[in-house]
Order: sequence, then C-alpha cells, then structure tokens
Amino acid sequence: MALPKRVLIREVGPRDGLQNESAWLDTNEKRAWIDLLAASRLPYIEVTSFVHPKWVPALKDAKQLAQSLNKKDDTTYAALIPNEKGLAHFFEANLDVGAMFISSSETHNKKNMNQSIHETLPVIKQMTADLKAEGRNTRAYISTVFGCPYEKQVSMDQVLRLTDILLSYGIDEISLGDTIGEAHPLQVERRLDILLERFPADKIALHFHDTKGMGLANIYTALKAGITIFDSSSGGLGGCPYAPGSSGNVATEDVVHMLQKLGIETNIDLPALIKAAEWIETKVERTLPSHCLRAFHSHTT
Amino acid sequence: MALPKRVLIREVGPRDGLQNESAWLDTNEKRAWIDLLAASRLPYIEVTSFVHPKWVPALKDAKQLAQSLNKKDDTTYAALIPNEKGLAHFFEANLDVGAMFISSSETHNKKNMNQSIHETLPVIKQMTADLKAEGRNTRAYISTVFGCPYEKQVSMDQVLRLTDILLSYGIDEISLGDTIGEAHPLQVERRLDILLERFPADKIALHFHDTKGMGLANIYTALKAGITIFDSSSGGLGGCPYAPGSSGNVATEDVVHMLQKLGIETNIDLPALIKAAEWIETKVERTLPSHCLRAFHSHTT
Repeated sequence: MALPKRVLIREVGPRDGLQNESAWLDTNEKRAWIDLLAASRLPYIEVTSFVHPKWVPALKDAKQLAQSLNKKDDTTYAALIPNEKGLAHFFEANLDVGAMFISSSETHNKKNMNQSIHETLPVIKQMTADLKAEGRNTRAYISTVFGCPYEKQVSMDQVLRLTDILLSYGIDEISLGDTIGEAHPLQVERRLDILLERFPADKIALHFHDTKGMGLANIYTALKAGITIFDSSSGGLGGCPYAPGSSGNVATEDVVHMLQKLGIETNIDLPALIKAAEWIETKVERTLPSHCLRAFHSHTT
Repeated sequence: MALPKRVLIREVGPRDGLQNESAWLDTNEKRAWIDLLAASRLPYIEVTSFVHPKWVPALKDAKQLAQSLNKKDDTTYAALIPNEKGLAHFFEANLDVGAMFISSSETHNKKNMNQSIHETLPVIKQMTADLKAEGRNTRAYISTVFGCPYEKQVSMDQVLRLTDILLSYGIDEISLGDTIGEAHPLQVERRLDILLERFPADKIALHFHDTKGMGLANIYTALKAGITIFDSSSGGLGGCPYAPGSSGNVATEDVVHMLQKLGIETNIDLPALIKAAEWIETKVERTLPSHCLRAFHSHTT
C-alpha cells in the first residue's frame, strides 16, 4: 500500500510524559513548554490529566494549568479525563478534546482504574455523551493492545470488541496503545490487517513506545497499512524513571523527522520541535531518549 | 514478501565501535569482551582494523590482539584491512575473513583513504586475490550508500557499479553502509528493489546506524525485501563521542531481540549478548544507546 500524504501527530508529552517523570515542573514551566510545543505547529497537545493528585501528584495543578493556557487558534488542547469529577474540571477549563482511558487487559484495567472493564465502559459512555452535548471532541485510549505486563497476550477479539463498543458511543478517535513497548512490526501488520477490515483508518491512532527500539519500525509498518494518526512525546519523555535511559513514548522529533524523510506532510516545524525538547530536557535533568534531539543538537553545538 | 527464516549477524563493535570511542581499552580487555561476544554465539566478529596507528590510535594493538584471540570453532574472526601492509599483519595473525573498504562518494573516499575510488579499486582487487589464494573469505564495505556528509546524495548507478566491480573480483559479501545514519525505510525499499534485481540477496549485507532512530525500521524493511545479513555493534557502540548519547551503529541486542520477536532464527543467546554489552558499557564509561540493554537491565536490577 502507498504511504499516506498527510499524518496527524498527537503530542502527549505534557500528560503522558510528565506523569511518568520524577522531576516536577511548576505550572508556569509547564505552560512555557506547552507554548514551545504549540509554536512548532503541533495540531494536538494533551496538556494534563484531571486525575486525583493522590494517583498522579506530578499533575496536581491540572486545573490551574488548563485554565491558564495561552491558547493558539490552530492547536487543539486536550486532557485526560478519568471520571465524572475530572469531567467537571475539564469543562471549567474549557478545553477542546476530552480523552478517556480503558485497558484491553482486565488485570491492567483493575490496577489502573480500580474497576473492571465492565464497570469502566458505562462511565466512558456517559462522559462521551456529556462531552458531545457540549460540542467537544472525544478520544479514547485502549491500552495494552500489543501486550500486557500482567496477562502477557491480549486477544485480538478483545481489542475488536472494545473498539467497536467505544466507536458505538460516538467517540471520535481510538488510540491503541503499546503500553509496555512490546509491539513488533509483524504483530502490528497482523493486528492492523484485522482491525482495518472492520474500522476506518481515520478513527484509529497508534500509541507506540520505543522501549526496545522498534517505535519507528512499528510506525512505518502502520503507515503502510493506512494509519495516519500517531501519538508521541516531546523528547521521548516518559518511560520508567528508575531505569535511566530507558525509552518511553516514541519521541515526537523522531516521528516527525522520519515522516519528513518519507515525504509525508505534518505541517510541523522540526527545528522548533527540537527547541521544545531541548527545553524540557533541561527541566527534567536527564538525557532524554529522543534520537533526533541528540543528532541535531550535535550539529548545532 | 515473506520474512526470511534465518539471519546472519556481523558483529562490528570491537572494530567499528571502538575506533570511534574516546575510551581506550587495553588488549586484555578487548580480548575479554570478544570472548563474551563469542560466548553469545555470534557467528562473525570483526575484531580490529590493521590500519596505521596514526589514523586510528585506539586500534594500535591490532596485531597483538589478533594474534592472541581465544578462538572458538563456530565463530568467524574478521578484521578490516585497508592496504597491503595491513594484509601482511592479517596473514600473520591468521584470521578468517578479510574485510576491505571503499566509499561510494568520491569525496568521502578521498577523506578516508587519501586516494580516489579509481585508485582504491585495484588495491582491493589485489588484496582479494591474495586473500583467496590463501583460502580466506572476503568482505567489502561500500560506505555512504544512503547519503554522504560531503556530497549528500550518492547515485544508485554508482552503488550498482561498485557492487558489480567488487563482486567481479570474487569478494564473498558486500556490506552497504548507511555511514551517517540518514537512510529511511522508503529509500531502503527503493534502493533494494533495484539492487536485488541485479545481485543475489546472499551477497549483500546492510550496515545501518541508529542516529535518527530508524535503524530497526530500515532492517525490517530490508528483511521484507529479502536481505539476510546485517552488521551491528554490541551496545550500539560507536557514533560520535562528542555528541553524548548519540547513536552509532544499530545495537546488536536490539537487532537480535527484534529478529527473535519476528520468529527469525539467529542462533544467538540474547541474555549472553546483553552481558557483553553491559561489560563494554562499564569500560567506555558512558551510557550506550542500545534500547534492549536498558530495557532488560531494568528488569534484572
């Protein structure tokens, strides 16, 4: 299959990256970083999660941050919403896209949401209805799609079933997550073969981690299957802080650089993106795993 | 095209890795590392380069090292031979495979070999004849095949011409190098389409760097085109020591791990390979860019 002409990048660094970092940024610092990301013309930035600070203390300023953003017209500002309480904060902050979360592994969902998949689904259904009633766009993450730390394999039937249910709620976009960085390109090929027979490609985003170095191999494979939406994180932020140098989310710079090489349009300013990654690297005070951050930095110093 | 059943890995760390590192290892340390690599059942290890110590001081003990290896029967020990003087040392050390070098970019060849491509070819021709007369296997690197730091693009005609000439000398295997880590999977696909129409896949190895994170994407693409021989470096050693964290050669652990995931046989012991990479990381005293070194290390500590 031919490569797509255009791709949309969903920047998840300020939410998915920071929630996994040991370094804490204050609200002004987060806002400054989000401004740098928006300046690179990223079309979507997930700025925070309206989760209880007991669970993710690094994002305890979610409301203050979301209410004080310097919003740009051509950027979509999103936040993760775990429950109805978070939804109220989301509406107060007046963000554009509400992202919800479920796991395709029962054990992983229990550990993350403290409830079963069966219990999570109606919560998502209600929040989706509320979000749509207010004219907001919606997104849902399905995690552990390519492997689970507890249950190992996750069946394709389960992934299809959940995708089907979530789309039936009217959710605009489903992001399938390789939560533990276990996906390999042959698996991606096989799972997408089945998935895209049933669902349109423009409803499906993929969320890869670069833990074993296969992030871009998986994205290239997905591009060839027709996927045009990918999640990534500035600098490759995220991952396990207790394993120095371990890679979390695939780095936005690496994805955008490869897309440019492939002649695929993203409308993103790569040098500006590198600047944003350089900035956050100084704040988290560790060498981030992004390849292009290193490669391009070495040319300029 | 279906994926191949078996792949051969050419470990180039002790030569291509160490020649680019600022840390120097003594002969005993190099031998100990090579022993660890051989213990992981790597089928080919390029142990050094018989280059003048003025050019690569880190490999100045080439002769002592090559003559004092603890050779294992099922490992092939190779060395780079830049000229007839190096060839004499190679024969004295009684190694198995002689590897030679040429660039597909005229400027890059001049900078590296201090002679034109036209002048390098007869030297390789004579060395190949000498090696074959002594019953040795031969390998030639063609560098800058996917891009050159001086001439940018290198024409496919030039790559085909050099491959053709080198194979006509009777060289057993040609390794095409992405010297500056610029190759992207679409380019790999296109170049291999042309190349494999003309030459058998079992004569062609690919040598990728992971500078921009596309190492495994390029290897997966090449596997699908039918390539079954890949160069890599333990720990991802190599690259530019002046750019901390920058990735050099694609890491052997990352390649072998992906091949295992894809169900492709290498006969290599991955945990033993990780041990070898952990060992060399302590010697070079910097965090190596290998993804699997980090990922698996974090599970065991």
